[in-house]
Amino acid sequence: MTEQRTFYQQRGFAQRVGFGNRPAVLIVDFIKAFTDPACPLGADFSPQVAAAAQLLEAARKQRVPVHFTTVAYEEGFPDAGVFIKKVPSLAHLKYGTPEIAVDERLQPQAGECVWVKKYASSFFGTALAATLTAARCDTLLIAGCTTSGCVRATAVDSCQNGFHTIVVAEAVGDRAEGPHQANLFDIDAKYGDVVALVEALEYLKGLRTED
Amino acid sequence: MTEQRTFYQQRGFAQRVGFGNRPAVLIVDFIKAFTDPACPLGADFSPQVAAAAQLLEAARKQRVPVHFTTVAYEEGFPDAGVFIKKVPSLAHLKYGTPEIAVDERLQPQAGECVWVKKYASSFFGTALAATLTAARCDTLLIAGCTTSGCVRATAVDSCQNGFHTIVVAEAVGDRAEGPHQANLFDIDAKYGDVVALVEALEYLKGLRTED
Amino acid sequence: MTEQRTFYQQRGFAQRVGFGNRPAVLIVDFIKAFTDPACPLGADFSPQVAAAAQLLEAARKQRVPVHFTTVAYEEGFPDAGVFIKKVPSLAHLKYGTPEIAVDERLQPQAGECVWVKKYASSFFGTALAATLTAARCDTLLIAGCTTSGCVRATAVDSCQNGFHTIVVAEAVGDRAEGPHQANLFDIDAKYGDVVALVEALEYLKGLRTED
Amino acid sequence: MTEQRTFYQQRGFAQRVGFGNRPAVLIVDFIKAFTDPACPLGADFSPQVAAAAQLLEAARKQRVPVHFTTVAYEEGFPDAGVFIKKVPSLAHLKYGTPEIAVDERLQPQAGECVWVKKYASSFFGTALAATLTAARCDTLLIAGCTTSGCVRATAVDSCQNGFHTIVVAEAVGDRAEGPHQANLFDIDAKYGDVVALVEALEYLKGLRTED
Repeated sequence: MTEQRTFYQQRGFAQRVGFGNRPAVLIVDFIKAFTDPACPLGADFSPQVAAAAQLLEAARKQRVPVHFTTVAYEEGFPDAGVFIKKVPSLAHLKYGTPEIAVDERLQPQAGECVWVKKYASSFFGTALAATLTAARCDTLLIAGCTTSGCVRATAVDSCQNGFHTIVVAEAVGDRAEGPHQANLFDIDAKYGDVVALVEALEYLKGLRTED
Repeated sequence: MTEQRTFYQQRGFAQRVGFGNRPAVLIVDFIKAFTDPACPLGADFSPQVAAAAQLLEAARKQRVPVHFTTVAYEEGFPDAGVFIKKVPSLAHLKYGTPEIAVDERLQPQAGECVWVKKYASSFFGTALAATLTAARCDTLLIAGCTTSGCVRATAVDSCQNGFHTIVVAEAVGDRAEGPHQANLFDIDAKYGDVVALVEALEYLKGLRTED
Repeated sequence: MTEQRTFYQQRGFAQRVGFGNRPAVLIVDFIKAFTDPACPLGADFSPQVAAAAQLLEAARKQRVPVHFTTVAYEEGFPDAGVFIKKVPSLAHLKYGTPEIAVDERLQPQAGECVWVKKYASSFFGTALAATLTAARCDTLLIAGCTTSGCVRATAVDSCQNGFHTIVVAEAVGDRAEGPHQANLFDIDAKYGDVVALVEALEYLKGLRTED
Repeated sequence: MTEQRTFYQQRGFAQRVGFGNRPAVLIVDFIKAFTDPACPLGADFSPQVAAAAQLLEAARKQRVPVHFTTVAYEEGFPDAGVFIKKVPSLAHLKYGTPEIAVDERLQPQAGECVWVKKYASSFFGTALAATLTAARCDTLLIAGCTTSGCVRATAVDSCQNGFHTIVVAEAVGDRAEGPHQANLFDIDAKYGDVVALVEALEYLKGLRTED
């Protein structure tokens, strides 16, 4: 992909957005349905969940706002639109089931937001953008799954909504390697910076805590 | 207001939008916090709730999609934005409390959507518009409270999102009569038709049920 | 309305949102079609336009971002939705006509945004919220017309999108006094602060210009 | 990619959404800046433009609504957010320049909408979804460029907004083959059907014209 990246940079893509001054952290869809390999839609995302846990720990120490998403539908899927025609396995995601809870290794704490979404983007049909704006956040650090689905859609919308968009490489995962790499490439070329976990942690540690 | 209405009509406002072919019904914020006079934000909306119940009954008979909204915030109100600075009484609306449940007289049934919103409009931060579009609805019948708050904001967004907007006069209520009347006037002048309950019921009864 | 205001304040409404740290100014629909009394939709908004001009002057001195809106439709009004069924006089607002230009007394300057909208809210179908967020604005000062239409809808959306919402009383106007007053009341009760022009000017003058 | 597709289908992805009953056609960013190889951002999309022209011809015969997008920024790029930090070459897209006009081979006709967007998705910051809904469209046929950028973002949002999403394979193009194929794969797996031009033309020809 190095050649492709060079080609893009020569055409004026793939520059650094950089970190802003007031970040928030978003954990996309690290819910049991996806992170428990025993679930029909699940896969083993243990390394990615562990990386996300490190990100969360650093964020909480600095009182950086933390957000999660999950996906859940009503009985009969009246709220799943045409999406469920394309992806019938969404039928595994139902209100009132344990699978839609955030993975226990990342347990949301009081004061953190868990947004229930119906589609790919964490911004679509939620008040996430408004909440980040009201908190004067200018930067969104993204972890979660899957890179080629909800993470990509969220990164595009994060850029569109006006935020410095940072995807933490070790903390996002996909069921398949090809789409994972291809989408990290696109995100880094057009919407946000794909950075190493250590770089994101350094940034969070370096923030001046507000009093 | 008759004079005002004439003035508006002469200027090309306040025409009839009329009913479309595929309606949905939306009950805005008829939750215990607002409909139980014992709650700090509550008022006696018994006649309006009864009218909404009639609307629901007619809709359910015809298998017209039914939607509800409620308002609920996380601990510490990180998702209440600047809205809660303006309206501190929003602090009564918290996840995990019985007050945010829909009024029992209107009990949502399986297959009906209950949208949790954070702001005035039922469309803001929800997938309501997408859900109506995916169901090919073209008309939204609105009941609920308050006329000058969430009903008005919802009616504006319903028009903006492309739906024939119908507000059922007897099924919407406010804490104060002045704002109630003023907002029905504005809605009818610019965004949707304010109709009598009997007219809405006739319309629903006259629909050809699809097989 | 004093009695009504007291009633609202006792119920936990109508508190002060206050000014934030990074404002932008928005002039809603002060276009010839509305501000030229010779146009079919026009009225004499001279005092309001003069107040808006003062606001603009103060904003420009402090390099505060300035935004305008206009309304324009394509031939045949394919982009006017059901709105034009309700308000047929929207047919006066067409691309390529001089009436959709911003009033010359408020002439937009290079680097200021003019958003073409199709509906009431300045946020609906525009990238205004994203643009304000990307510029790290936290406050929106609103002028324009009409109070009961596009100003009200814009103020609701400004609050919903996470901004401190300030409506400048002398700089907003309506075709009719009743709706004007009623909507200022509602805005001040629920969405933003209605302030005197002098207060807004003081605020802008007191900003520390960034270098 | 066959193996990958099989894997996805076994997991309940990549089913057919199919065509609905009321389509619209959207031509994404086939503007001179991108389709004229002499422009800094341009490439030779002649085959794709020719395919889009066939699609347009079929749509116009059947009076199917036609939409276009372009991208244009104000002087100084106040409306380009953080996107222009990531993609500095967006600076070639300015109001008042010939490059932002739709390619002459696809010349928009009276009554067709040209949406000016600021970001990747044709739905973001435009009233496209509302316009499609108001016209009771249920299906969006997508052509344009680039597959890995604005076409992908538009396809995701089309699905999210409730439309049957159809991407016409021969009518979408990219500057690089890898991202082109990878994004068609993702779109077909999760958001819409990637179909051959001949299939789209058959569908349009088979529509019963409404009187």
